[in-house]
Amino acid sequence: MALGKDYAGQQCALARALELVGERWTLLVVRDVFYGVRRFSDFQAHLDIPRAVLTARLAALVEAGVLERRRYQDSPPRDEYDLTATGRALWPAVFALAQWALEFVPSAAGALREFAHIPCDRVVDNTGQCPACRRVAPADELEMRPGPGILTQTRTDPVSLALRTPHRLLEPLDLSAAPKPA
Amino acid sequence: MALGKDYAGQQCALARALELVGERWTLLVVRDVFYGVRRFSDFQAHLDIPRAVLTARLAALVEAGVLERRRYQDSPPRDEYDLTATGRALWPAVFALAQWALEFVPSAAGALREFAHIPCDRVVDNTGQCPACRRVAPADELEMRPGPGILTQTRTDPVSLALRTPHRLLEPLDLSAAPKPA
Repeated sequence: MALGKDYAGQQCALARALELVGERWTLLVVRDVFYGVRRFSDFQAHLDIPRAVLTARLAALVEAGVLERRRYQDSPPRDEYDLTATGRALWPAVFALAQWALEFVPSAAGALREFAHIPCDRVVDNTGQCPACRRVAPADELEMRPGPGILTQTRTDPVSLALRTPHRLLEPLDLSAAPKPA
Repeated sequence: MALGKDYAGQQCALARALELVGERWTLLVVRDVFYGVRRFSDFQAHLDIPRAVLTARLAALVEAGVLERRRYQDSPPRDEYDLTATGRALWPAVFALAQWALEFVPSAAGALREFAHIPCDRVVDNTGQCPACRRVAPADELEMRPGPGILTQTRTDPVSLALRTPHRLLEPLDLSAAPKPA
């Protein structure tokens, strides 16, 4: 990995984590896979990320064992990306960073999304803990729901439009109804 | 912030968090302040970070409201850094990333450190939850204790040596007994 040499003198786990997911844009790509984005053109439309950067990030995440690649079409060749077990375990880090910004770097609009613990039908608190069962909910038990900030969202790419309705984390988004980017 | 323009099209909280703490080395500096490091020379000795990079990261973290700077000596001028309330709230993100690497990017040695919930005297689980009281423990209720990996640690800078004994998070490390770097 690109950052390995820089952190080589660091034995701590945080340094190892940053070697794998500390590159610019990487955690935003990972977050999008939690939200159900699977295909290159959809990541690109949702993240406004340069094509070469997205290609490099996806390849690095596959190499790091965070994502796995699956061919879904041969002609022309097209791949889908999904989280491995290693990648799914990044949810608490993605959630914690987002919650921190929600509270301490607030936007005027409020939270775009809330996360509900599906078995209990309760929105988890800012530590990720369900107020009913007191478990810290893993990603596969969470449903993303639009929060108050969604009313001010101006993005109109297919992924942003699809995410305006409740959606279970890790399940692929159905983007067939939405207009595809050119 | 340097990353602001790149993520400008992103309305989500995760993107705002990464604008402030997503630069290389930044979260390692923040982690060190949780561990009790306060002074420039001690960050430098512990992180092996280039002087100019450390200067830039500390200035950016002060500007972002994550750290506050305090002059502790006038001649020559020397500053100390401490976490603001905003900075302290980053603990769950630092912890989550480190726990992820411990489990999925393991080193042969095992965890360098464990974190115990002081009121209950129990080591928290990998979600940060105390097995006794079931609270997700905030940083100011945690004591860092050496884990099994500490036996193989080869670093001999004053901070690494001081961190071989139990230490309450956020309390300044006493480095007076340890040899100072040249």
